[in-house]
Amino acid sequence: MKLKKLALNAQKKIWPIYDLNISVNLAEGAIDREQLLAVQGNELIKTSKDQPIYLCNPTFKDAYDRMKRGPASIIEKDVGMIIAVIGLTKNSVVLEAGSGMGALTAQLAALCKHVHSYEINEKHLKVARENVEMLDLDNVTFIHDDVSTTTQLPQEKVDAAIFDLPDPQTALETAKKTLKVGGYVVFYTPQITQAQDVFKNLDEEFKYLTTLEIIQRRWEVGEQVLRPKHSMLGHTAFLTVIRYFPMK
Amino acid sequence: MKLKKLALNAQKKIWPIYDLNISVNLAEGAIDREQLLAVQGNELIKTSKDQPIYLCNPTFKDAYDRMKRGPASIIEKDVGMIIAVIGLTKNSVVLEAGSGMGALTAQLAALCKHVHSYEINEKHLKVARENVEMLDLDNVTFIHDDVSTTTQLPQEKVDAAIFDLPDPQTALETAKKTLKVGGYVVFYTPQITQAQDVFKNLDEEFKYLTTLEIIQRRWEVGEQVLRPKHSMLGHTAFLTVIRYFPMK
Amino acid sequence: MKLKKLALNAQKKIWPIYDLNISVNLAEGAIDREQLLAVQGNELIKTSKDQPIYLCNPTFKDAYDRMKRGPASIIEKDVGMIIAVIGLTKNSVVLEAGSGMGALTAQLAALCKHVHSYEINEKHLKVARENVEMLDLDNVTFIHDDVSTTTQLPQEKVDAAIFDLPDPQTALETAKKTLKVGGYVVFYTPQITQAQDVFKNLDEEFKYLTTLEIIQRRWEVGEQVLRPKHSMLGHTAFLTVIRYFPMK
Amino acid sequence: MKLKKLALNAQKKIWPIYDLNISVNLAEGAIDREQLLAVQGNELIKTSKDQPIYLCNPTFKDAYDRMKRGPASIIEKDVGMIIAVIGLTKNSVVLEAGSGMGALTAQLAALCKHVHSYEINEKHLKVARENVEMLDLDNVTFIHDDVSTTTQLPQEKVDAAIFDLPDPQTALETAKKTLKVGGYVVFYTPQITQAQDVFKNLDEEFKYLTTLEIIQRRWEVGEQVLRPKHSMLGHTAFLTVIRYFPMK
Repeated sequence: MKLKKLALNAQKKIWPIYDLNISVNLAEGAIDREQLLAVQGNELIKTSKDQPIYLCNPTFKDAYDRMKRGPASIIEKDVGMIIAVIGLTKNSVVLEAGSGMGALTAQLAALCKHVHSYEINEKHLKVARENVEMLDLDNVTFIHDDVSTTTQLPQEKVDAAIFDLPDPQTALETAKKTLKVGGYVVFYTPQITQAQDVFKNLDEEFKYLTTLEIIQRRWEVGEQVLRPKHSMLGHTAFLTVIRYFPMK
Repeated sequence: MKLKKLALNAQKKIWPIYDLNISVNLAEGAIDREQLLAVQGNELIKTSKDQPIYLCNPTFKDAYDRMKRGPASIIEKDVGMIIAVIGLTKNSVVLEAGSGMGALTAQLAALCKHVHSYEINEKHLKVARENVEMLDLDNVTFIHDDVSTTTQLPQEKVDAAIFDLPDPQTALETAKKTLKVGGYVVFYTPQITQAQDVFKNLDEEFKYLTTLEIIQRRWEVGEQVLRPKHSMLGHTAFLTVIRYFPMK
Repeated sequence: MKLKKLALNAQKKIWPIYDLNISVNLAEGAIDREQLLAVQGNELIKTSKDQPIYLCNPTFKDAYDRMKRGPASIIEKDVGMIIAVIGLTKNSVVLEAGSGMGALTAQLAALCKHVHSYEINEKHLKVARENVEMLDLDNVTFIHDDVSTTTQLPQEKVDAAIFDLPDPQTALETAKKTLKVGGYVVFYTPQITQAQDVFKNLDEEFKYLTTLEIIQRRWEVGEQVLRPKHSMLGHTAFLTVIRYFPMK
Repeated sequence: MKLKKLALNAQKKIWPIYDLNISVNLAEGAIDREQLLAVQGNELIKTSKDQPIYLCNPTFKDAYDRMKRGPASIIEKDVGMIIAVIGLTKNSVVLEAGSGMGALTAQLAALCKHVHSYEINEKHLKVARENVEMLDLDNVTFIHDDVSTTTQLPQEKVDAAIFDLPDPQTALETAKKTLKVGGYVVFYTPQITQAQDVFKNLDEEFKYLTTLEIIQRRWEVGEQVLRPKHSMLGHTAFLTVIRYFPMK
């Protein structure tokens, strides 16, 4: 179901509203469906308890952050680095595997021309499809197949391939078949030994660029407080980047 | 001048070629202008020393990485996080200040609908313009003015504003005038105290989201080597993210 | 109560034994007091269920790790850096404030000649005393006073002072009165602004050396696993190091 | 040669003085040998140019920091963590290999009861011996042998062994022969795969505790500046910690 509106209270706490036909009950009081349906754009209304609630339009990110996702879903720091490290543009066509629950798929689709997304797990694929639909993205082709052995290749050559796979080196042949000359592959691998496996399996048609990790450190900022947060995510995955130069 | 071709030797070392009318001299031998002009797409040629050289089309990133930039130019890890943390899309309109040499401008323009970029330093602005032109980006409007006091505001409301400024809190009023409801501001600040200054200056029309830093760690990967690189960039900037909710 | 023995099962899981006069009940079966009292040194015994249990002598670290401590107690990475950054030796005399629950006190006392430890909070001081006693350390003098205003100064000059205080710069005068020429002060401060406060309050009798933070990253290592752990402590404190050179 | 005095100028810049019989020439003017020999303890003197120079006694750390060392010498953050992670005390007897240039040896010897240090490279051993002598440490036994195959074992059992070796797992047998029950081994390994090699080679007499890395981040602190330094050492080594429980 699509995210229709945001409701904010005076403290700017946000509640998502998915259905304008159902009245909303907050601690601040009720907002009835007539109020919801009547709001055009952004508007300050009063609840049944005469409390102010601000109703406004959600951004792509509001909906994106409320997508269904799993514990292994990619997060912002890695999504961002993948985009920047290969210099994606709105003209880019991207191949991706596996789709997972679509966390990378959706952000790529929001920015790029088209995403071809492969997933072998039917349950994940179903969630990914729902997520992409919920976000109104119409430029994703999902393929229910193993990217390493698939014969369902995109008709167009792709600018980049992004692999989040248990044995990522098995996808190198598919990369060769689909990448434009000079195209990029990014491997997202939880284990550092997976990055080494990719490295060891590169043949002369690939140029190894880099392996890196992106560490995000959140800060506690206040009038009297200025320090990194105590709780921190220590690791998600390593990113390994290569390019395809067939030299022939 | 635009990047026209890449020349790769057998070891996949890359040389950029900006002018197809001038022959290229490499350790591998010369490539004359007739060869350069004759190449369609991607092709393996022989130099005057009968060495193989692969000529191929550059990607956006090839040209982007060869842009003129300064020591304070933003790098991939931060560009990526800015894009991901606010969920930019190809429909986004972005306001940016200062342009600097256009390192953020160019990647944003390659992905988004339009970028309005403010810069007070004329020399920087000149470089930024050249960079954007060299990259064939036609969706940037540069404004030579102080973003905090400018009256030259974009005609359209923007989805996000990104500020890399010495006193970033001074730009909050401009943000109010130009942001859509729910729009994002990202402050890129070298000093952590600048992030605190932003925090202290937020009024009730803004919602503070987070302050964080992105740390990039490169790895040395080889057959027998698997460790983080010794040399590392310890810091670039803190990212502070807020949203605009005027609540009226 | 002092840690007397360790009991290890076949999987090397460890149970601490504090009282040899009380029989121990494990999933592996009971160890009765006669068995406990009879063991000399390290010995493999059988429980009432005929399961093997290894009884052996604890190290200092075994007891240290089982000290009572609070959420703000200093941890290994910072204890170690404090010791190394000022080059402590077994001849060093150290002043410390506040004692907290004695986590730093105990490790310093185990390594150095003497520790003078100040604490204003009586409850903390009681725990710190018990911890130090439990660890058989007899070279700690606790002083129940505010280190910044105390008149109970050590009779001997100290080699180093270590301050974990809310307003650490207030202790600078005490540092002057007690430090040897060339002696070190380490400030352990959760907030980075506290480090700046120290810096701003240094007069010409101090030489500022450095401010740093120590980040510990644990790895998951297995036959098939090789990656940083997902859970990570993002921050404890900043360490600021200065030296006392009165120049007169 | 031993460090005899420190000379500080008004800005607290430090020069080491190794020979009191040789006059010292600074930009601030000369200090002649009569002045040097006459100074008792710490004293403010005047140079030939009537500039103030403070002469004072060095600390252990002053001499330690001026030891001859190589590019792979261990640094403070790792020295400190090794000490803290195994809870060394002034009663600890430690075995170490290789000595390298004695950077770890010296700090351990300054804190512990005795260090048995093995080194196969004669040139390194010579430097390590000189360093230890220069620091007035008399509790180090150097053994010029391969620790993995040596028959020259310490007569006493040791509390801990610290290995910085290319194939660290080869030293496990020596560890068994020399460690007290419950004793610790710390492996200092530049490669993460070396840590995994240790893990894979542990038999039932060892208990694996942890593998971790210590990352040091220096900050730039000033009146108007508060940020991490741009230049940073990205990596030194991983620390893997195990304990010896022969269970018999």
